Amino acid sequence: MAETDLARDDEFELTEEQKLLKESLLDWGERELPLSRVIEMNQEGHPFPEDLVKSLANLGVIMGPVPEEHGGSGLSWEDQAIIADQIGYIDPSIATAAGFMAVETGWGYTLNRYGNETIREKFVKPAINGDQFVGIATTEPGGGSDVAGFESTAERDGDDWILNGEKTFISGTEEAQKMGGAFWVNVRTGPAPEDAPHKNMTSFCVPVDADGMNFQEPYRDAGRMAISTGGFIMEDVRIPDRFRLGEVDKGFYYTMEGFDNARILIGASSVGVTRRILEEAADYIKERETFGNPLAKYEGIQFEFSDLYTRMKALRLMYQQVARMQEKRYEEAGKGERTGSPKTYSATDVARWISMIKWKAPHLAKEAADKAMHWLGAAGYADDYVFETAWKGVMSYCVGAEGGANIQKIVIARETLGPEYVPYK
Amino acid sequence: MAETDLARDDEFELTEEQKLLKESLLDWGERELPLSRVIEMNQEGHPFPEDLVKSLANLGVIMGPVPEEHGGSGLSWEDQAIIADQIGYIDPSIATAAGFMAVETGWGYTLNRYGNETIREKFVKPAINGDQFVGIATTEPGGGSDVAGFESTAERDGDDWILNGEKTFISGTEEAQKMGGAFWVNVRTGPAPEDAPHKNMTSFCVPVDADGMNFQEPYRDAGRMAISTGGFIMEDVRIPDRFRLGEVDKGFYYTMEGFDNARILIGASSVGVTRRILEEAADYIKERETFGNPLAKYEGIQFEFSDLYTRMKALRLMYQQVARMQEKRYEEAGKGERTGSPKTYSATDVARWISMIKWKAPHLAKEAADKAMHWLGAAGYADDYVFETAWKGVMSYCVGAEGGANIQKIVIARETLGPEYVPYK
Amino acid sequence: MAETDLARDDEFELTEEQKLLKESLLDWGERELPLSRVIEMNQEGHPFPEDLVKSLANLGVIMGPVPEEHGGSGLSWEDQAIIADQIGYIDPSIATAAGFMAVETGWGYTLNRYGNETIREKFVKPAINGDQFVGIATTEPGGGSDVAGFESTAERDGDDWILNGEKTFISGTEEAQKMGGAFWVNVRTGPAPEDAPHKNMTSFCVPVDADGMNFQEPYRDAGRMAISTGGFIMEDVRIPDRFRLGEVDKGFYYTMEGFDNARILIGASSVGVTRRILEEAADYIKERETFGNPLAKYEGIQFEFSDLYTRMKALRLMYQQVARMQEKRYEEAGKGERTGSPKTYSATDVARWISMIKWKAPHLAKEAADKAMHWLGAAGYADDYVFETAWKGVMSYCVGAEGGANIQKIVIARETLGPEYVPYK
Amino acid sequence: MAETDLARDDEFELTEEQKLLKESLLDWGERELPLSRVIEMNQEGHPFPEDLVKSLANLGVIMGPVPEEHGGSGLSWEDQAIIADQIGYIDPSIATAAGFMAVETGWGYTLNRYGNETIREKFVKPAINGDQFVGIATTEPGGGSDVAGFESTAERDGDDWILNGEKTFISGTEEAQKMGGAFWVNVRTGPAPEDAPHKNMTSFCVPVDADGMNFQEPYRDAGRMAISTGGFIMEDVRIPDRFRLGEVDKGFYYTMEGFDNARILIGASSVGVTRRILEEAADYIKERETFGNPLAKYEGIQFEFSDLYTRMKALRLMYQQVARMQEKRYEEAGKGERTGSPKTYSATDVARWISMIKWKAPHLAKEAADKAMHWLGAAGYADDYVFETAWKGVMSYCVGAEGGANIQKIVIARETLGPEYVPYK
Repeated sequence: MAETDLARDDEFELTEEQKLLKESLLDWGERELPLSRVIEMNQEGHPFPEDLVKSLANLGVIMGPVPEEHGGSGLSWEDQAIIADQIGYIDPSIATAAGFMAVETGWGYTLNRYGNETIREKFVKPAINGDQFVGIATTEPGGGSDVAGFESTAERDGDDWILNGEKTFISGTEEAQKMGGAFWVNVRTGPAPEDAPHKNMTSFCVPVDADGMNFQEPYRDAGRMAISTGGFIMEDVRIPDRFRLGEVDKGFYYTMEGFDNARILIGASSVGVTRRILEEAADYIKERETFGNPLAKYEGIQFEFSDLYTRMKALRLMYQQVARMQEKRYEEAGKGERTGSPKTYSATDVARWISMIKWKAPHLAKEAADKAMHWLGAAGYADDYVFETAWKGVMSYCVGAEGGANIQKIVIARETLGPEYVPYK
Repeated sequence: MAETDLARDDEFELTEEQKLLKESLLDWGERELPLSRVIEMNQEGHPFPEDLVKSLANLGVIMGPVPEEHGGSGLSWEDQAIIADQIGYIDPSIATAAGFMAVETGWGYTLNRYGNETIREKFVKPAINGDQFVGIATTEPGGGSDVAGFESTAERDGDDWILNGEKTFISGTEEAQKMGGAFWVNVRTGPAPEDAPHKNMTSFCVPVDADGMNFQEPYRDAGRMAISTGGFIMEDVRIPDRFRLGEVDKGFYYTMEGFDNARILIGASSVGVTRRILEEAADYIKERETFGNPLAKYEGIQFEFSDLYTRMKALRLMYQQVARMQEKRYEEAGKGERTGSPKTYSATDVARWISMIKWKAPHLAKEAADKAMHWLGAAGYADDYVFETAWKGVMSYCVGAEGGANIQKIVIARETLGPEYVPYK
Repeated sequence: MAETDLARDDEFELTEEQKLLKESLLDWGERELPLSRVIEMNQEGHPFPEDLVKSLANLGVIMGPVPEEHGGSGLSWEDQAIIADQIGYIDPSIATAAGFMAVETGWGYTLNRYGNETIREKFVKPAINGDQFVGIATTEPGGGSDVAGFESTAERDGDDWILNGEKTFISGTEEAQKMGGAFWVNVRTGPAPEDAPHKNMTSFCVPVDADGMNFQEPYRDAGRMAISTGGFIMEDVRIPDRFRLGEVDKGFYYTMEGFDNARILIGASSVGVTRRILEEAADYIKERETFGNPLAKYEGIQFEFSDLYTRMKALRLMYQQVARMQEKRYEEAGKGERTGSPKTYSATDVARWISMIKWKAPHLAKEAADKAMHWLGAAGYADDYVFETAWKGVMSYCVGAEGGANIQKIVIARETLGPEYVPYK
Repeated sequence: MAETDLARDDEFELTEEQKLLKESLLDWGERELPLSRVIEMNQEGHPFPEDLVKSLANLGVIMGPVPEEHGGSGLSWEDQAIIADQIGYIDPSIATAAGFMAVETGWGYTLNRYGNETIREKFVKPAINGDQFVGIATTEPGGGSDVAGFESTAERDGDDWILNGEKTFISGTEEAQKMGGAFWVNVRTGPAPEDAPHKNMTSFCVPVDADGMNFQEPYRDAGRMAISTGGFIMEDVRIPDRFRLGEVDKGFYYTMEGFDNARILIGASSVGVTRRILEEAADYIKERETFGNPLAKYEGIQFEFSDLYTRMKALRLMYQQVARMQEKRYEEAGKGERTGSPKTYSATDVARWISMIKWKAPHLAKEAADKAMHWLGAAGYADDYVFETAWKGVMSYCVGAEGGANIQKIVIARETLGPEYVPYK
């Protein structure tokens, strides 16, 4: 499709290394994870196949930006965003992207940065190698973005902490139990000040197999069925102080950093999902004829295609931009360990950019899947086509995984108009 | 909720009979088909429970407008639209509405009108009583709205016709095989003129159990899983001439009439789905608090609610209007038998109104389900909540069941601007 | 255009009287106010031509629902809504509809209902006859919908009241000064309770020529230039108590009733504007050819047309519905004088319906004008075409005249979900 | 507004030169063209003030990318896009951007590239210096994008050509007559092949003061009133062959190149318009209080702001990207003279990118102006506020100046799906 290849990377210049990375992922996808397997995995449901995790790890793409001296690949955040895009393209159900790209890379990288040597050896490296799982467990029945309702606690007991409480909507609970690993858990280490409920929270690295960890049955979710989502209750879970992440009472800020990293990758992988949807749909509408013309020739379809394509191109530039900004911040503040503070881009700059991509990219992917189903008609409604699987998958990011749409809109307004305009204050 | 009852029927005056009808359906729904059963039925999949069919039939709501002398309830089309709305409200997965309201009523009524006494006794009455199923089988692999691709044929053989060909995307194939009954089948009785491919088609009433009827496995569809969708291949199916519907070579026009009737009910039931979604969502957003306020208080949610509510109210008026128009037409042209021609409303008037409601109502229901999932966040994403089930159900009407959205837009333009502006001509 | 007349009234049955009314208005429009004059009047700017006012009055359409014994035509609110639709169709700049239909009818009717015999003789009857102007002056620099910022006051002085304060964004200030007449003015007669700032307001009928009335220069507005908009400052304006409207401190509620009446007519006239825009645009796109086809044949244009047309049809049903509801209320509560309370429809029912039509109808007209300009291309951009004039006119209703869009959304939510969900409380 | 400056250039790295360029333009704007003058100029109408043209020329920003040896500033296309953005920001009526940035730069640059030394000396250099005007005159009464309707002709007569025909919708006709200069004119030099009507057209540089040039009265347009739009009729206009541009019969392709250049700048300047609108609106909604809160705090307003802001950021990246692509092409093919062919980016790549920005950017600016008017309410409706002026200005680009929206959508689809899917073929 020389002249009309819609996947052509005309929106940014890639280095030779990045081109190779993309191609090797594409090869891997064709070999290990063709669309037929994606659909099958989603029909069969979790847990996620261990061979795929191992195979991803061998590519070096789990937690790519972790420095080589810590066991990572030393990639830039721009590289990792390109990987996320490609993974979304290969598996538009987002199960792979959600579980082993966004979650492990976003949170594992942050865990590595705030954890000590023990954590790195026991959890980060095995996860990078595909032998264990690291994830995030922050949401509670009382709330996600609104941390005032958080009730989990940690109390100091000698060299240890005793954790109690319930965590919900956690990606990868089944996989973690099977493979071993740990979760980044955020709990109260002091009462929530009424005007600043995000204070007095501390982050811990909690091993999956700690005593007192009671996992619930995974949920029957609408989509991304190839990876589990569930919850656990902590009953007097004893955690040594060396599994504490960063300083006491500062957990909220570290957690935000983890969200930032995960959100960038979610944005990028959603762009990849969109790309795959448009490609698959383009193949169909160029072939299928009705009333004597291929569907692609009808403006009612073609104009929607042009619109989705244009917005996808814009979002590719946006995730590239935000990945570069984050890379710059880490270059200035330390990639593997905290050695300084970011200078070029303010926290405000990055926060609004991350919210922009986290908001827009999954919604575009959802819209593309929805439109494609309309273009295909009854054929697009079948369970064994990619569009419905993709729709259900990206919907999880739209409704709230890693932060709902309205929260992103508030962040953008807050970091642009000023903090005094937060609506709920 | 005296002052703020969102289900209050302030958009049209109902007769006492209509009020009773609505209430009896509501009672029935609470007793026989609560939301929990709806979700369960969709998780378990087809076939549709026979007890429910029988129970619906006892209410007299299947093919309500068939005259009493033909075994029906002699309801008006406005009454039947109110029933359709209520059924959509009770079962927002649309399995009940699609299978036993829109399909049986829309097509069964038309079958009754073009069929003779034999057909009425053998197929229409048993279906009205819930003992058999009648449905529609018109789409072919080569096309739905575009009849130029139709390849099924009927050839005259003495007093019989020999039918051959394949029909796809048929609602209720499993149920029909189980319960017995017949399909309205449209086939070529002459070659398709290039400039008028809708000519030379004839309609037949084809018994499910006729020799040569080979049913396929039902499809794995995205939604409305409580009723089957499938296809069949006709191999030398012999049908007596008395099962012919109307005149030879005029089948296209009768089929359009069946579509008209089905589409009105689909519109009305989609409005009922929307109403249920908004009610269920309202209950949630009024209760659930975040950042110190119930969700319903946030403009980001409330304004979307106001918008959906407003458009739902408009669509209730629209389906009432179109049902009244259709009733008027049948009053003038004969409800049970063809005795005259419509006068008050032209074919053009009715066609555009039907396309307006068929287009807009399912899309609004889909949008309401989508928005509700966003309001609820992760909770709305769960498989055991009604929103995802509703979304997947109404999506079948959006993508094309009973005519896709773009075809409706073309009909509206054609019947308003003129036939010379049909894009594909 | 027999079969494809887009103006065909297929959405509701009209009585013979209503048909005559429509036709007589259409005749009047062709004779007195063709599109060329509309455009000319808007280019030349206010004041509105007195001959047109007189001519409208002769048709009996100003304040039609005022009972005949009070000098009106005794029309129903549904009749008046049909008039408003027709006036919007004739003059899509909305200058006529805004000034002499919505404002005079909505507020004059309410004035008649709350005023005494003196007011009826001195102001209402002359306005009905086209010899004077009655309008509304409620907005202040401190706010429109938010009455907490209202600062105008009335103090009792013997049999009189002394009024002070400033009123802004008043339709018809130039016309009123030229023709004579009065404004419905709302002022504080006691301090604003913090939790109920709408209390302690009283309404007065203030003659244009009262001493102390200082009119400002009319504004340079974006549109509807054929009628003036301005403000006035009241400096010790002495008003006899018999010009008080209703009870002291209850003015807010009467004012809401006036808004209700005006909003219904604005909704209906906006639908008329949309109808004219679509007709004029249809004429163009059916004629103009590009790339070998008339523009109307391209789906990119045709589908937008179908969408606008469909939503217009829905809004016609909606304004008819709300006008009937309001008529019912007045039948129960007294049309010319207050003799009882409404029963059939609650205040809540009517309030949300009025907000629905006030919100949606002007926005649809604006969107239709915007789209038409795109269909016509450079031709649609010309100042002497109707689309830009219409766009600028209806925009005044969109941005806030008689209540902005967001206020309407809040009212719909409040009257549906409950008063406890008003966002700003 | 340190932390929350919405104009902060966090979306791309600027060189020191680019930063200086931006600042000098901002200074110039504050000094020479504050918002008050923009509004005044638009109220007074054309012609565009000559002092402003001269002043712009002194900044070196007219036809910046023309090489220094040809009298230009030797800027890159990315530099020029930044200038265009800034000019749109300074004058959101787009009169300045349209007339002296997009038109003169886009077409003057292309004129310089296809013209010979005489043309450069007589027309290009004086225009760069602000002493003359160069523009484009291609549209005819029979069509804009559809060149099949073009009827203007040139016939060879010895060393000259004799031109006849009519050109319409030309920017700057009054200014050109006053200042002197020339238009790029496209005419038929052979019959239009039915299947390739773009063939057999030749481009000429036609002096404003040539004998036989008859200018029409400028149009009464909806907006951008500070610069004239009009047409002219050519009656036996004699043009020497040395004023021919490029090869005979190849004019269509050169003209497309001119459109490409102009469209990039229109995209960029529309982004600047959006930025100014959002800034001005932000100032208002942060200050103005209603119901006890600043408007900016209401989600109904804030969420729309976040959305517009996000899309503006995306479009900034897009115009930067396309400007870089175009720069690359000219680097490979010769900036001042044609010395080679582009290699890195295909014609297809650039065409779709240009269509994407030309389509989306003016529409976003229009939407931002529309939304801002809603946020401000009645205040936003005033003629002397910037929003209405901006709306009317950018609308000219939306409806078709330099190519309508639907044409852009077709180009995007054509260059992505393939040329066989052009709808009108």
